[in-house]
Amino acid sequence: METKNILIENAVIVADRIKKGSLLIENDKIVEINDKIVANNVDDVINAEKKVLIPGLVNTHTHLSMSLMRGLADDLPLDTWLNDHIWPVEANLNGEHCYAGALLACAEMIKSGTTCFNDMYFFMDSVAKAADEAGIRGMLSHGMIDLGDEDKRKAEFKETKRIIEKCHDTADGRIKVSFGPHSPYTCSEELLEGVRKEADKYGLKIHIHASETQKEVEDVLEAHRKRPFEYLDEIGLLGEDVLAAHAVWLSDNEMEIIKERGVKLSHNPSSNMKLASGISPVSKLLEKGICVSLGTDGAASNNSLDLFEEMKTAALLQKVHTLDPTVLNAHEVFEMATINGAAALGLENGIGTIEVGKKADIVLVDMKTPSLTPFRNPVSHLVYSANGADVDTVICNGEMLMKNRELQTIDEASVISLAEEASQDLLSKS
Amino acid sequence: METKNILIENAVIVADRIKKGSLLIENDKIVEINDKIVANNVDDVINAEKKVLIPGLVNTHTHLSMSLMRGLADDLPLDTWLNDHIWPVEANLNGEHCYAGALLACAEMIKSGTTCFNDMYFFMDSVAKAADEAGIRGMLSHGMIDLGDEDKRKAEFKETKRIIEKCHDTADGRIKVSFGPHSPYTCSEELLEGVRKEADKYGLKIHIHASETQKEVEDVLEAHRKRPFEYLDEIGLLGEDVLAAHAVWLSDNEMEIIKERGVKLSHNPSSNMKLASGISPVSKLLEKGICVSLGTDGAASNNSLDLFEEMKTAALLQKVHTLDPTVLNAHEVFEMATINGAAALGLENGIGTIEVGKKADIVLVDMKTPSLTPFRNPVSHLVYSANGADVDTVICNGEMLMKNRELQTIDEASVISLAEEASQDLLSKS
Ligand SMILES: [Zn+2]
Ligand SMILES: [Zn+2]
Repeated sequence: METKNILIENAVIVADRIKKGSLLIENDKIVEINDKIVANNVDDVINAEKKVLIPGLVNTHTHLSMSLMRGLADDLPLDTWLNDHIWPVEANLNGEHCYAGALLACAEMIKSGTTCFNDMYFFMDSVAKAADEAGIRGMLSHGMIDLGDEDKRKAEFKETKRIIEKCHDTADGRIKVSFGPHSPYTCSEELLEGVRKEADKYGLKIHIHASETQKEVEDVLEAHRKRPFEYLDEIGLLGEDVLAAHAVWLSDNEMEIIKERGVKLSHNPSSNMKLASGISPVSKLLEKGICVSLGTDGAASNNSLDLFEEMKTAALLQKVHTLDPTVLNAHEVFEMATINGAAALGLENGIGTIEVGKKADIVLVDMKTPSLTPFRNPVSHLVYSANGADVDTVICNGEMLMKNRELQTIDEASVISLAEEASQDLLSKS
Repeated sequence: METKNILIENAVIVADRIKKGSLLIENDKIVEINDKIVANNVDDVINAEKKVLIPGLVNTHTHLSMSLMRGLADDLPLDTWLNDHIWPVEANLNGEHCYAGALLACAEMIKSGTTCFNDMYFFMDSVAKAADEAGIRGMLSHGMIDLGDEDKRKAEFKETKRIIEKCHDTADGRIKVSFGPHSPYTCSEELLEGVRKEADKYGLKIHIHASETQKEVEDVLEAHRKRPFEYLDEIGLLGEDVLAAHAVWLSDNEMEIIKERGVKLSHNPSSNMKLASGISPVSKLLEKGICVSLGTDGAASNNSLDLFEEMKTAALLQKVHTLDPTVLNAHEVFEMATINGAAALGLENGIGTIEVGKKADIVLVDMKTPSLTPFRNPVSHLVYSANGADVDTVICNGEMLMKNRELQTIDEASVISLAEEASQDLLSKS
């Protein structure tokens, strides 16, 4: 393979310090960051004047293919939403639907500056295919649900192994697979124990929902006389390789368990607000040194995959919740969406910051727009004033995915048509 | 003056019912809405295929010129933010700064689909000049603060009258002036009583901040032995012509007073969250039949003027606050940003809905984008999935302000330069 170089000049680079300069990409990696860079045989030179260069954002909890169900049902009680709207539609999902929904979600993520995602859903080889074509980085898990049924449990492990064998470490290493036990209330103890054993055997991560709603806490308390994280700890599931989404209703003891076991969290403020689940004590968790990252959840409960919006929502929600405007400052929430996201997926040595030697997962945000004027503190603007539409250029693993807001790996009109057709087909069956 | 016609075809029109059709504008008014319209001598025909046509959004509480202070100071306690950052800068403001900041804010508002705003600040004739040039609709008030000082009080009335005489009902009627007593804790009783008298005399509205923070409630309680709205009622300020911003900390009795007096409210969720002021009981207020509209507050405390973002934040915040996902549904919050906003300014017969005979304040939102696919329930998409950048075309008072995201009345690059210079000049003096 030939060397491919991209030189970015005159950018305001948000690295450990913020400074104006140039950055050189060779193949999939950042190889130099400097005031000026003289490079020969550069394939592409980008003048990033008045653009801010940041690491690609990391969305640590989503269900890409649910983008087909965006706006299908809103403003409903959780059980009505699930029983009458989401589950009947999901019962008819096939691989083509999931491919179309995932490709649509990849287009949306790239257009809003996300280069890495953590997904749990069904037909995950179709999701892998979409992510591979889109050029984005992702960790995929088949959502395992047995509700105590042994045959279902066996089928879930079989499907998970199929996805591992077919998809793990494919697409130049961009795509990884993890175990995806859905939650402590939809998975049996046997399933969860099996996941721990298999995850150890394969050396793969575990992605789970936990402590999303008060009802979940009550149900787990009733079934196991323990709160969700206490129960998961008791059966040995928790560890540094576990990423738990939501973590809204936490006792002090559960926060201690999360810290002790090194469990990583994905905070999903918009979804928790829209479904009226509650408010995660994020500032307390960060104070304890727990790794809290950021996720959008699926587009059916958000209804957007824009992590810029999610950063602002996270910061503002925590401030009003604690009645303290100083908590979850712009810098902290920016880290949640970048390096904490990378760390939550075990990828902190490869992505999440702008550093020489790291993968070239890079986003340029155009600050030459009224809503980002005056051009001042870039991190404040990124968190509080920008949205995904201000993203100008996206590079993942050294490959150009969007240039001047034009998608390079996805034909935008085609993916919109494909998703419209898939959505109509899916609903016509439901 | 010659007749100027604009015909919009194939739009999904969000009127009392949502249907696809055409809309004809003659001069400043909507004159026909129909499946197909045959019109002669049309100056401009817009094909709005896959675009949603909505009333221009109404921002009922902002401080436009504060856009110069966007991102200047974040994540600080309220008193530090005001004492050490905002007030020292405001002390050096002049008319040129306010013009530049207001024009920048007009560009940002137009680009995010707002066609009408309600502003309180200083050098309001400069703000009127910016709004006139931008072609936008607005109600302006000089922010009156006397802190009990009689000379200051006289000066505030003098300035208010100067602004009324110079600016009220100018720019083809687009610009109105109101009285702007800043708040119950920065204005003396004499000032507030004077405002009521003069507002009655002139037949103009009153725009005030009230019950923003717990500290304000405590301070007013201490000074007057009444809560803010009780005190304002006691001295006779309240009435149907009063628009109060924030209204966060309300007793049941205050809600009754607001309802009884017909006071209009402006809910500012992002600002209330970012400054950690608290959460207004919006769903309760709406249930009581109180007119609650939507505002962004100034860009220094938001840090955005995007009402699409504000709609989503309002809905999500109320859901999580009440732990009820059914409250403040997409339709209700869309009304807050449109017809309730119009009603809050007494303009409900002229703007706020798409109806024949109303002013042509119209926004087209482009739904042909991944983040708004599948194309489904338009109001859900507008509230939960869209942001200001999805706005394609903006018309105000029959005049084209933005076409295919190109500003028509403002030179975008110039206003950015002007605002950068004004901001630097302002900060160099502070
Ligand atoms: Zn989820
Ligand atoms: Zn204000």
